[in-house]
Amino acid sequence: MVRRVVVLNVGENVPEETYAVLREHADVVHYGRAEPEQLRRAEVLVTFRLSREDLEMMPNLKVIQILSAGVDHLDWSSIPEDVVVCSNAGSNAVPVAEHAIALLLAAAKRIPYYHERCRSGDFSRDKTVKVLQGSVIAVLGLGPIGMRVAELAKALGMRVRGFARRPRSEPFIDEFRAYPDVRGALSGAEFAVLALPLNRHTKNMIGYEELRAMRSDGVMVNVGRGGVVSKPDLIRFLRDNPDFTYATDVYWSGDISQDADLAALPNVIATPWIAGAFGNPRVYLEMVRHAAENVLRYLRGESLRNVVDRSDYL
Amino acid sequence: MVRRVVVLNVGENVPEETYAVLREHADVVHYGRAEPEQLRRAEVLVTFRLSREDLEMMPNLKVIQILSAGVDHLDWSSIPEDVVVCSNAGSNAVPVAEHAIALLLAAAKRIPYYHERCRSGDFSRDKTVKVLQGSVIAVLGLGPIGMRVAELAKALGMRVRGFARRPRSEPFIDEFRAYPDVRGALSGAEFAVLALPLNRHTKNMIGYEELRAMRSDGVMVNVGRGGVVSKPDLIRFLRDNPDFTYATDVYWSGDISQDADLAALPNVIATPWIAGAFGNPRVYLEMVRHAAENVLRYLRGESLRNVVDRSDYL
Repeated sequence: MVRRVVVLNVGENVPEETYAVLREHADVVHYGRAEPEQLRRAEVLVTFRLSREDLEMMPNLKVIQILSAGVDHLDWSSIPEDVVVCSNAGSNAVPVAEHAIALLLAAAKRIPYYHERCRSGDFSRDKTVKVLQGSVIAVLGLGPIGMRVAELAKALGMRVRGFARRPRSEPFIDEFRAYPDVRGALSGAEFAVLALPLNRHTKNMIGYEELRAMRSDGVMVNVGRGGVVSKPDLIRFLRDNPDFTYATDVYWSGDISQDADLAALPNVIATPWIAGAFGNPRVYLEMVRHAAENVLRYLRGESLRNVVDRSDYL
Repeated sequence: MVRRVVVLNVGENVPEETYAVLREHADVVHYGRAEPEQLRRAEVLVTFRLSREDLEMMPNLKVIQILSAGVDHLDWSSIPEDVVVCSNAGSNAVPVAEHAIALLLAAAKRIPYYHERCRSGDFSRDKTVKVLQGSVIAVLGLGPIGMRVAELAKALGMRVRGFARRPRSEPFIDEFRAYPDVRGALSGAEFAVLALPLNRHTKNMIGYEELRAMRSDGVMVNVGRGGVVSKPDLIRFLRDNPDFTYATDVYWSGDISQDADLAALPNVIATPWIAGAFGNPRVYLEMVRHAAENVLRYLRGESLRNVVDRSDYL
C-alpha cells in the first residue's frame, strides 16, 4: 500500500518526538526537504502560512493544518473549496491569556507610566490606580483564549460578561451578550479583553460608539487581531478620552511599524505581537504538538477539530 | 456613666457611616478637632502614625489601632508596654496582591521593556517571554497579602511554595518551607513574591546567597517592605545577573528618591509605593472600615485581632 504523505513546514530544530506519532500512519517530510513527487502526493500540510505556489505544488491536499490560532492571514480565495482548513485554536491559549491579564493589570496599576517615572528618579504619585476585584470585565470572543481570560478574571474577583455567537454555561461567566450586540457587551464595563478572530463578521466591529459604551476611564485589551477595531475611530476616541487606556499586542498591518502612530499615543500600552510567549521554545513545541494531534485524528479517520468555516473569511 | 473616647486620625472627608457603628459604644472624635480633655481621656486611637507628643497628650490609651498593614514605621520604644497595638493586616490585601501579580506579569512578559520600544517606533523582538503556568513561585509571608498572592498564582497554574513561621493547609499551597529556611524556600524558584512584614526577624533576611538560590533568570517581586532585602547585596546581584528581574513597589527609605540608584538599574521594574491602590477612595475607606471593625470588637469586650507582638519590633 502506498504511504500517505504529510508535509511539515516547521523549523528544522523541532524535535522528531513532537510529531513522531504521525509516522505510524504516514510519511512525514519536511517542507524544505520534500521531493516534488512527495509534494504532489501530499495529503496534509502543516504550516503557518502558504502561497499560491505551495497550492500548485500540492494539488492533492485534503487538509491544511495551520499552526497559528488565527487564520485571517490566508489567501482564502486561492484555497480550493474541497480542502479542509483547520486552525490551531487553543494551542497557545494559556500564554496569550496570561499576556491579556498582564496588559490588563499593567493598565489598571499604571505600571509602564510609574516605572518610567521611577527610572528617571521621579517617585511622585499623581494618577489613580484601579482595583480589579468587584469590577466588570467584558470578554469578547469565547474561544480557548477568551475562556481562559474569563476564568482568570473570575479568579481575580471580577464580574465577567461574555460575548460570543453562542452562550457558554461556565461558572466563571456571570452574564452573556450574543453577537452582534457589541455595545450591550461593552456597556458600562470598566475593563474589556478582545480575543476575537478577524473575519468578515468581526472586521471593524468596534468603532467610536462601541468604545464610548465603556466607562470613559476604562481599559480595553486586545490580544486577538487589530482589525477588529476601527483604527481611525480608536485613535479619535483615545484623543477625546485621555483617561481611557488601550493596551494591545496586535495591530492592523503585517508590518507593525505602520501602526507606530497608535503606539505613540500616551494612553496606549503596546507590546510587539509577543503574547504567544515570543522566543519561548516550550510554547512553540506545544503548538506543533497540538497541530500534530489534530492531524493524527484525521489520519485515524476521526473527526477533525478546529475546522474553519471558510464563509467567515470570504 | 462617662462615655469612652475613641480618637480617629483619618481624613475629614471619610464619611461618618464608615465608623458610625462605634458611636453606640463611645464618643468618636476627630484628632484635629479633639479637645485636650478628650485626648486625655482617649482610650483608643485610630491612626497611620503617631508621635511622642501624641502619646503624651493621650496618657490613658489602651489600644492603638494602626490603619496600615505594616507597623514597622512606629517608634516602638516610645509606646508604653501596657498599650495594645493592632495592625490593619488584611484591610488592603486585595489591591496589594493584585499589584504583586501585576509586577510579576509585567516582568514575565517584559511589558515595560517592550512598551518603551514600541512607543519609540521600534517593534522588533529580542528578549524571550516567560509563561507562568507550570512554573514554581515562592511566596514569602503568608499573611492576608501572601495568601491572596498564593491563591492567584495557583489560579494561574503555578506551583506554589509557601514560606512563613507556621505552615498553612490551603489547597493553593503545594509545598511549605518554615522560617528561617529562606534559601530552601527560594531554591530553584523562577518566581518569588515577598509579602513579609519588616521586623527584627526579617530585616536583611534576603542577601546575595538567598537571591542566588533562585533561577538566574528569575523574577522577584516585593510588595512588603524594602528592608527585608539587603540593598547592597541586591544591587550587586542584579549587576552580576542581567537576566534576573527585581520588580518592586517598596524601598528602604521613607524618602524613596534615596533609592533612585536601584530604580535606575535596567533589570528593575519600579512603582512608587502605590500597591494599596494609590488614590483609590474605595480602598482607603475599606481600610478605615476594617480598622473600625476591630475597634468595635474591643469596645464590645471581644478579643482584638491583629495584635502586634512588640518583641518582633524591639
